[in-house]
Formats: sequence, structure tokens, C-alpha cells
Amino acid sequence: MQPTEDPVREAETSRHRQADQPSSLVARFGPEAPLMLDCGVTLAPWQIAYQTYGTLNADRSNAVLICHALTGDQYVASTHPVTGKPGWWELVVGPGKPIDTDRFFVVCANVLGGCMGTTGPASTNPATGRAWGLDFPVVTVADMVRSQAALIDHLGIPDLFLVAGGSMGGMQVLQWASAQAKRVFAALPIATGARHSSQNIAFDEVGRQAVMADPDWRDGHYLSAGTSPKKGLAVARMAAHITYMSESSLHQKFGRKLQDRETLGFGFDSDFQIESYLRHQGSSFVERFDANSYLYVTRAMDYFDLAAEHGGVLAHAFQGTATRFCVMSFTSDWLFPTADSRTIVHALNAAGARVSFAEIVADRGHDSFLLDEPEMHQILAGFIASAARARGL
Amino acid sequence: MQPTEDPVREAETSRHRQADQPSSLVARFGPEAPLMLDCGVTLAPWQIAYQTYGTLNADRSNAVLICHALTGDQYVASTHPVTGKPGWWELVVGPGKPIDTDRFFVVCANVLGGCMGTTGPASTNPATGRAWGLDFPVVTVADMVRSQAALIDHLGIPDLFLVAGGSMGGMQVLQWASAQAKRVFAALPIATGARHSSQNIAFDEVGRQAVMADPDWRDGHYLSAGTSPKKGLAVARMAAHITYMSESSLHQKFGRKLQDRETLGFGFDSDFQIESYLRHQGSSFVERFDANSYLYVTRAMDYFDLAAEHGGVLAHAFQGTATRFCVMSFTSDWLFPTADSRTIVHALNAAGARVSFAEIVADRGHDSFLLDEPEMHQILAGFIASAARARGL
Repeated sequence: MQPTEDPVREAETSRHRQADQPSSLVARFGPEAPLMLDCGVTLAPWQIAYQTYGTLNADRSNAVLICHALTGDQYVASTHPVTGKPGWWELVVGPGKPIDTDRFFVVCANVLGGCMGTTGPASTNPATGRAWGLDFPVVTVADMVRSQAALIDHLGIPDLFLVAGGSMGGMQVLQWASAQAKRVFAALPIATGARHSSQNIAFDEVGRQAVMADPDWRDGHYLSAGTSPKKGLAVARMAAHITYMSESSLHQKFGRKLQDRETLGFGFDSDFQIESYLRHQGSSFVERFDANSYLYVTRAMDYFDLAAEHGGVLAHAFQGTATRFCVMSFTSDWLFPTADSRTIVHALNAAGARVSFAEIVADRGHDSFLLDEPEMHQILAGFIASAARARGL
Repeated sequence: MQPTEDPVREAETSRHRQADQPSSLVARFGPEAPLMLDCGVTLAPWQIAYQTYGTLNADRSNAVLICHALTGDQYVASTHPVTGKPGWWELVVGPGKPIDTDRFFVVCANVLGGCMGTTGPASTNPATGRAWGLDFPVVTVADMVRSQAALIDHLGIPDLFLVAGGSMGGMQVLQWASAQAKRVFAALPIATGARHSSQNIAFDEVGRQAVMADPDWRDGHYLSAGTSPKKGLAVARMAAHITYMSESSLHQKFGRKLQDRETLGFGFDSDFQIESYLRHQGSSFVERFDANSYLYVTRAMDYFDLAAEHGGVLAHAFQGTATRFCVMSFTSDWLFPTADSRTIVHALNAAGARVSFAEIVADRGHDSFLLDEPEMHQILAGFIASAARARGL
């Protein structure tokens, strides 16, 4: 492999994304280093955009890979170039934080199929010179992990001290711990599952149908057409956002409180605060996310079923593992309920793995892993400290 | 009031609905009998379409009003004129059924704001000669009950032996038992709440935004424009349909089973059975339901908050009631969880009402009230038999 690396301010993806395109490190892989995808397609050239924090030690033994969720990106601990908001996990990653960038070399890459600089459906299809659109091959969580492994190789890192992530990030953690077991010293899958449930596939399908129902989607070729399916993508985000919260947190935060009024408006404007909140979630999301990437990344989640790749027995995915696991779930998470984490823990136990499990009492649903949940941070810090001692760090 | 009544095969609403319009009884109210709405608008003329089953006895004491849910209609126990399917509650209503049409005179009317013959946004606005569209006044559950009360007056029924319904039908039952307490001998609110939760408002708002995002919606004037926001309405239905089922029933029914294939398709067709099932739910729904009615009827549900109308104390809504109540919920219903029913029961207890409550162990979520759930049917039959004895029927 002879990747080239350089910081870029603009990716060569599409005129629509160019203006938004962040300053990010990008590893480019040419025809000599294609990515072999689960669907059978050989992707080349391709690239992966990433951020790093901290310094790789002389032993190259202190690398941590953070895997992001569906709508996350590589800006785990630095200001987002489009929104100007803090990194999505600055509560966890940074100097003196549980994943301490004074001690660890942290890498976070945009997933394959994403829209923040890694090759995805908005990238240029070399065969046509136009954006891939739906001609982009459907990618899987395993493909995402393959692309990250290529990046880790490229960075000269033999193995990872820790792979951590929540939600779809947790799926990648599990995939790393299975497919690249010998390169993972410790694994931290949070608020995730070893496969997507029927209900989760259903919600993803609603989101995809919302995008595809928007005539501005143009059968996926909106970039060439100069349109943008913002309304459909906003509806998709609104529906998904409900699943990230809990009924009780919605009740506590919004209840039936009215928005900027004292009585019902008897119309279809936002009467209730929850309505304007959701509308804001939808409209702000479309400014930073590509609609086709939304289709591809949700599809990757739907397809994830780690047991199915191992004869239907999840424990076989971890046979003989030496990785230390810490599995975490949240009581109010109904997208990836604790039962999903227990399934993982049982499989790890059956595989003889070293595993600890914590179900954290938290009221804010699936999104708890992104929020200020001190118990999660304490457990996470304790697990990392223990693993670091074992690793001699 | 001097309503005229006649069976109609076609309503005068709009050319789009004409072809679908069912054979139904319709009570028409002219300018001399306007409907006073909560929003302050006086609606006239207006009409209400309904079905009846069984015979009113000489005492006029055996009348039962069935209230339908969001996407239900008056065809509670007869073939649906558009879909050709059996009535939506034939398991419960009919000769020899728990609500026995050999004994009771059953009335079921399409709700105000609906699209099966009762005045709604697809009806003709007398001021313009065109369909109302979004100029139709926003109606409430209380307005629906007012319109039903006018129908019951019109039918010469002094009071109702029973008012029964599930989901939004249950909201109407509660409203009847509160606003028209002396006319309700027994009340059967099933799988419902005394107010819509924040999460339920959120899901409704997603549905409305999906409809309004469809350019064929034409700001609500699609009937005049000759278009139909079918894609948006289908997405709304898909999202809502997930909330009518339980995670466990989806898992049992569909799991991750593939549709017409043995391996993943690596595309965006329906790979999984749950996807094609949801798509079918969406596409079949739009054939029988008006998109603006969907906006109005969901809005009525959002606005429902019986306690708010009584100084914030739900018990005050039922003060001094002589009605017998049977409240039912289902263990797997997460749209109207048992806690919502318990709130109703506590308020009824505080008001000194005669109330029984059953939480039924059922696996199929909110839709359980429509399904073959023998325990529900037994409890329902027992409650009705006891109430009938007390009533001397």
C-alpha cells in the first residue's frame, strides 16, 4: 500500500459539499490498495478522513480508535467545522478526560459511506466523473472496519490499546474485536447490539423512505441535478431523533409545554415545544449531512448481524479472544435496550472472554452515551485505567 | 335542529373522494344547527356519516356508541367500502359478540375532521365552493364528541347505555364521560390516555411534517390542484405503524427475516420482511385516507388534555359521575402504556367513580385492542353483562 496523506481543506467529492468540507487529515489509497467490500465490489481509489489527538508513544502501544455513530464524524474532540459546536465526545475524550489525550494517541475517522471526507456516495465515481449517488456500493460495518484497519496500518500502528464507541460505533467495536481480535487490547462497546432489531430496521426504513419520497432526491442523483432532498432528510432525522430519547426525558424536558404562546394556536405551527425542538433537529441536521450517506449508513446498521457471520452463534465471533471488554447500556435506552448488551455479554462469557458489564441508570435514552453521565464516565475511566496497567502504559 | 337524513352513495366533498365515497347514513345539519367549535369557529352547514347495527328498543335504553381511532371510521362491523375488508372491530361488535348487536343498538360515526363522509378538510367550504384544505378549522376531541352528541340527539336517543373505544376512540369515551356524564351509563376506554404524551405528539409531528414535505401537498390545496401527497402520507403511516406494534411482536413476526431472497441484496429494495410490510402499510393506507384529515385528526389527539380543561386536576373531569367505567390497557402498548390508564383510574377513584381496571398481558402492542385477544373480549363481555343487568336490559 502506498497511500498519500495530506491535510485538505476541500474534498473532491461534489460541488455541494465543497463549501462545507472541513479541514481534516485524509489518507488516500490508490488502485494498488483497493478496499474489498462485502458486496463483492473492489473500491479504488478511496480515502478516509480522520482526526488525531495526543501523541503516539515510542512503543506505538497507546493508540485508541474511537468509532462514531450514524450521524457522527471524526470530530470527536474538536470543533465541528460546519456547526461550530464542540466535538461530539469532548466529555470523554481530551486532556485529563477518561480517554486522556495526554496519555493516549486517539484516532477517529469518518466512516466509509459517510460525508465528512471519507469516500461515500457523494464522492466522485471515477468511472463517470460525477458523484456516485446510488451507484455507490452498499457498505457494511465490516467494510467500515476494513477501511479503519487500512488507516491504522497506514499510521504505522501495529495494534490498538482500545477501540471504543457507542451505538453504530459500538457495532464497529464488536466487529474490530471479532475480525481483528489480535489487534485490540481492550474494547468498549456502549449502547449497542450485535445485530439490528426488527424495530430498528423499521425506523431506518422510515427514514430512508422519507428521503427517497422527496422529489429533490432525484433517484439519488441530486448532486448532479443541483437539488437537495432537505425536507425528506429532515423528516428522517426527526423520526430517528425520537428514538434517541426516552419517553420520560421527553416528558421531563418538554411535557406538553407550549412554544412562545399561552394557549393552543388551533393551527399547524409549532404549538408544543417538542414540535419546534424536533423541527430544529431536522432543519439543522440537513446542513451538515448528506442524504445518500444517510441511506448508506443506516443500511450498514441494518445489515449488521455478527452472529450470522459465525454460523448463528455469537460466541463464535469471539472464540479465543484475549481482548478485555467493558460493555455498557442505559436503563432508558429503547433503541439498544440492555437486553442487547446482555446478549453480547453472554456470548463473551461463553467465549471465555474477560468482560465487565454495567447497566447505567440514566433517564435520557439512547443518547445518554453522548451526555454528561458521571457514572458512565467513572466506569469508563476505571476500565481504561485497569487495562492501561495491564498493558504497562 | 332540523337535520335531514338520507343514505348517500357520494358525498359532496371533492372529486377526489367521490369515487371512493361509501354508502353510509349521513345526518346533515344546516345553518340552524351549527357546530360550535373549541377554536371559536361556528361550523355550518356540517354533516356526520355513520353506521348503525341492531335495533333501538322501545325504551331507547340500549344504544351503544363506538368511537373510532385515528385512522378508523364508521365501518366498525361491516365491510369497508374502499378496502373490502371486514369492519375494524368485528371481533367485538356483531350478533353474539361482546357488544351484541342482537341486544344493542350500535352507532358508529366518522369523526369530525375525518374523510369518510363526516365534514372535514376535504369537504366543500361553502364560502369558496372548493375543498376547505387548511382553511378548515382545527377541531378537538371535544368537538368530535359535540358532533356525536348532535347525532345521538338527532337519532332520538336520550342517553347511551355504553360508550366504547380504543386509542383516540378512548379519548372520546373519556370526553363523553366528562362532558356528557349524565348521558353515559357505562364507559369503556381502552388503550388510551387522558392526554397525549410528549412522545406521542412528537410522532404525530413527524407524520404531519412528512405529509407537508410532499410537494404534492400544495399547502393543503392538493384537491384543487389535482395532486395527492401519497408519498408523504405513506411515510407518515409507516412511522406511526411502528408505534402500534411492540418490539417483541416485530421480532416474533419478522425478526431479521429476508424478503423473497436468501442473501442480502446490497441495495435499497426491501431486503427485510419488515421493510416490505411497512411499505405495504404505507401504500395501502393512502388509498383510503385523506392527507389533510391525517393532519387534523392527529392534531386533535395532540390537543387532548382532559385535566387541563379542569384546572389541571383530572379527577375534576369526573366529579359526581354515576357512570360505570372499565379501563383496559395492554402490557406491550408503548404508545399508551399502562401508566396512562392508571392515571385515569386514579382520577376516577378520586372522583368516587365505579371503576374496574384490567391490564391485559398481550404481546402485540397498541394494536392489541383491535386483535383477537380473548382476555380483553372476556373482560369486556363481563363488564357489559354486569352493566346491562344494572340497567335492566
